[in-house]
Amino acid sequence: MTQINRRIVLASRPEGAVTADNFRLEEAPLAELAEGQVRVRNRYLSIDPYMRGRMNDAKSYAEPLALGDVMIGATVGEIVESKHASFAVGDKVTGMFGWQDYGISDGAGVRKIDDTHVPLTAYLGVAGMPGVTAWYGLNKIIAPRAGQTVVVSAASGAVGSVVGQLAKLAGCRAVGIAGGVEKCRYVVETLGFDACVDYKAGNLYRDLQAATPDGVDGYFENVGGEVLDATLSRMNPFGRIALCGMIAGYDGQPVPLKQPQIILTMRLLVQGFIVSEHLEFWPEALGTLATLVASQKLHYRESVVDGLEHAPDALMGLLQGKNFGKQLVKIS
Amino acid sequence: MTQINRRIVLASRPEGAVTADNFRLEEAPLAELAEGQVRVRNRYLSIDPYMRGRMNDAKSYAEPLALGDVMIGATVGEIVESKHASFAVGDKVTGMFGWQDYGISDGAGVRKIDDTHVPLTAYLGVAGMPGVTAWYGLNKIIAPRAGQTVVVSAASGAVGSVVGQLAKLAGCRAVGIAGGVEKCRYVVETLGFDACVDYKAGNLYRDLQAATPDGVDGYFENVGGEVLDATLSRMNPFGRIALCGMIAGYDGQPVPLKQPQIILTMRLLVQGFIVSEHLEFWPEALGTLATLVASQKLHYRESVVDGLEHAPDALMGLLQGKNFGKQLVKIS
Repeated sequence: MTQINRRIVLASRPEGAVTADNFRLEEAPLAELAEGQVRVRNRYLSIDPYMRGRMNDAKSYAEPLALGDVMIGATVGEIVESKHASFAVGDKVTGMFGWQDYGISDGAGVRKIDDTHVPLTAYLGVAGMPGVTAWYGLNKIIAPRAGQTVVVSAASGAVGSVVGQLAKLAGCRAVGIAGGVEKCRYVVETLGFDACVDYKAGNLYRDLQAATPDGVDGYFENVGGEVLDATLSRMNPFGRIALCGMIAGYDGQPVPLKQPQIILTMRLLVQGFIVSEHLEFWPEALGTLATLVASQKLHYRESVVDGLEHAPDALMGLLQGKNFGKQLVKIS
Repeated sequence: MTQINRRIVLASRPEGAVTADNFRLEEAPLAELAEGQVRVRNRYLSIDPYMRGRMNDAKSYAEPLALGDVMIGATVGEIVESKHASFAVGDKVTGMFGWQDYGISDGAGVRKIDDTHVPLTAYLGVAGMPGVTAWYGLNKIIAPRAGQTVVVSAASGAVGSVVGQLAKLAGCRAVGIAGGVEKCRYVVETLGFDACVDYKAGNLYRDLQAATPDGVDGYFENVGGEVLDATLSRMNPFGRIALCGMIAGYDGQPVPLKQPQIILTMRLLVQGFIVSEHLEFWPEALGTLATLVASQKLHYRESVVDGLEHAPDALMGLLQGKNFGKQLVKIS
């Protein structure tokens, strides 16, 4: 076993868009394990939009990272050393071990996973936090009835792809919003959405109207900005909006909502949420999602970058919408 | 009994602010009553912000008025002729009889009221629709716990004044936002709010921060625009916003929400509502409110204009924030 842990830390806070200068790759010797701890060799790191927010020094739902902190992130890996009664060497686990080769934990937040029928990487996506995010927002906020129309932005992404597929399984009309012809084709042809609007085509309002002839009853928002304005204008009375992500605003530029009065005139519910605050629903959601993956009723796509050192590029690409499907970094 | 009914109809749709030209006073002979109908002599007409929205030809929660329609509005009055078994001449009633001397109804939506302990006009305000609006938004959307901070805009108005007083009765810190020193003094000294921010004083953000040292847990929004932006910036995690009115936008000019991402970062609930869609709560709310009025635990103030012909001025004044307390028109 190598005695060196490579890790990527926050070197400086972004001013506007994230740049490579904001990160620093460090090497440090492995620390000794204390009683009750385990050491995990990370295999895959999940790259997610929320990471951008944590790089700011701003009031938000989570404490910001301090300069010098290891970048946070969900990982799947394998126990390589254990002084904890519940974990054995060789166990596959998922946890928040961040952008590094190895992590240490007392077991809190570490979950053993079974990759017999569900691939290891799926636990970072469709059968992990992004999947539960989709499940929670759709079922606990939007709560659609069969026949209603559900729209989701970033529809080809890790969360959006699950939202639409779950909506279809619930008997809804599922409409995606995604950037580019290729992503939209994937959303309709592979994921089985009823329609997908390419926001890059330049006719967002018109195309969305055509794709939602009966209006919109539920909207799962991963993006914010213009697509939120456009979808808001299509909402039916008593519609529900699950507000999950605001990529467009992470760089700090103001992204106003143009017509907030629609929330009143259509008597909408708008609920911001982060799924880690609803842990009571995770077992049910994870069970449902893993079963759907194992029975191939949930499709997903991954975009894997090889090598921890490329994690910054993976995040920057994600924030620019360059990824296609769940963005992962293969660490080992 | 005079045989003439004076009525004010929508003569033209406003372009921007409402003007006197948008209204027309007409006279017409009284129609014969059919079996099962009652005729009501209106005594007082309630003037409310929602009337502005109904003058537009726009998609909203209610059908717009047609040109030539009698302006809608809640009234209290007295049965002067009855061919309905449940109503007798002399009964005091409240209903939606609009901007006119007399109304006819088959009894639907007409409610008998008792002015022994509660003044007739209170049924148009604190013990009527505005009161129920306050009760519903506070109890069913904001649902504050004792010790939490509740902010309400248009705090000296018919709805806002009740929101704050009910919040105080629930053990909350109640903070109002109102326009001008006089209104703010009334909100604190007469209504018993803990603080009131004068948005006309030019230091809205700073003053609101000072008035809400522990942040804001619940916000009852009657106005929209800048006060919504300011209060949003003070919201605590898991805060609730009951969206009841957007006066600032009724004239059609765009009033964007500057920082919608706060809904996500603070995991807020934003719920638009109109109280007429929640009739199941009216009996409970009206009972509670009438009891509080009769026992003088709810204070209110009225601004009465004398004469149906001045109703347009009353509405225009209300929309410009010139009223102080519940705006009424004395018809007879």
